Amino acid sequence: MIEPDRGSLCEVLHRTYDDQVCSIARTLEVVGERWTILILRDAFLGVRRFDDFQRSLGVSRGILASRLDRLCEEGILERRRYRESPERFEYRLTEKGRDLWPVLMSLVNWGDTYEAEHGPPKLFFHRECGGELTDRLTCAKCGEDLTVRDVEWRPGPGAKRAAA
Amino acid sequence: MIEPDRGSLCEVLHRTYDDQVCSIARTLEVVGERWTILILRDAFLGVRRFDDFQRSLGVSRGILASRLDRLCEEGILERRRYRESPERFEYRLTEKGRDLWPVLMSLVNWGDTYEAEHGPPKLFFHRECGGELTDRLTCAKCGEDLTVRDVEWRPGPGAKRAAA
Repeated sequence: MIEPDRGSLCEVLHRTYDDQVCSIARTLEVVGERWTILILRDAFLGVRRFDDFQRSLGVSRGILASRLDRLCEEGILERRRYRESPERFEYRLTEKGRDLWPVLMSLVNWGDTYEAEHGPPKLFFHRECGGELTDRLTCAKCGEDLTVRDVEWRPGPGAKRAAA
Repeated sequence: MIEPDRGSLCEVLHRTYDDQVCSIARTLEVVGERWTILILRDAFLGVRRFDDFQRSLGVSRGILASRLDRLCEEGILERRRYRESPERFEYRLTEKGRDLWPVLMSLVNWGDTYEAEHGPPKLFFHRECGGELTDRLTCAKCGEDLTVRDVEWRPGPGAKRAAA
């Protein structure tokens, strides 16, 4: 059944699908896989080494290796040798990777609001003045726009061990 | 091989994995599937009807139906009857759904920066004063914190049809 407004809507949709909307689709091409987001989450928390990612995520070594390779190919992580003999590498966020911080924080904020029945598991603060991080990624106290480097965290009311 | 700092790092990681980090993992449980994010993208662009989602996304009707059902179960979309005979339904974002706007916009922003070689396909503006939407979701002109309802968009330099 043809809806009265379908013609115009579909025209909009097709234009949309062809062009405007693809910044989301393209981003998902790169980071839109569950393990990839969780690897990035760990990287933002300071994890750098293969075995530590593996232990944190409980993912198979094969999947982890392929996701890390993909993130390096995309320039989101950088593989750096930190020991010569035996040769050892670690994975660090590049600037392109650090720029994903707002994506991760927007997931955190929504999850804190709707999926954290005991309250936020983590609270984020401006390292310099101690003000809380707002959902606009600014400091609630001094108003500054914050980046990942400006922010530290403490366990919140939803943190299991902190509550125990 | 045991790294000198592994013990303490793993302690942190385990605490982290148990509690702090799960707002991301929990959010991904709900919206962390490619089609789900693209359905939400379309919903934010005003798509409401099954056939229009299907046409926009090119996804199978079965997958679309299951994703829409899941989004309704999670309270992110609401199924509303808009015609009685024959009975027809549409899907609308709830408040919980609209609160995912920052997630979508953070994906747009990153994609615009790194994956849009011809520039942003879409530009977003404060409906009231015409100021550009910043990556903090504020208005570049009047400084107001903006929500999805305050924002309109126009094709940007990366919009294929606009450039054609």
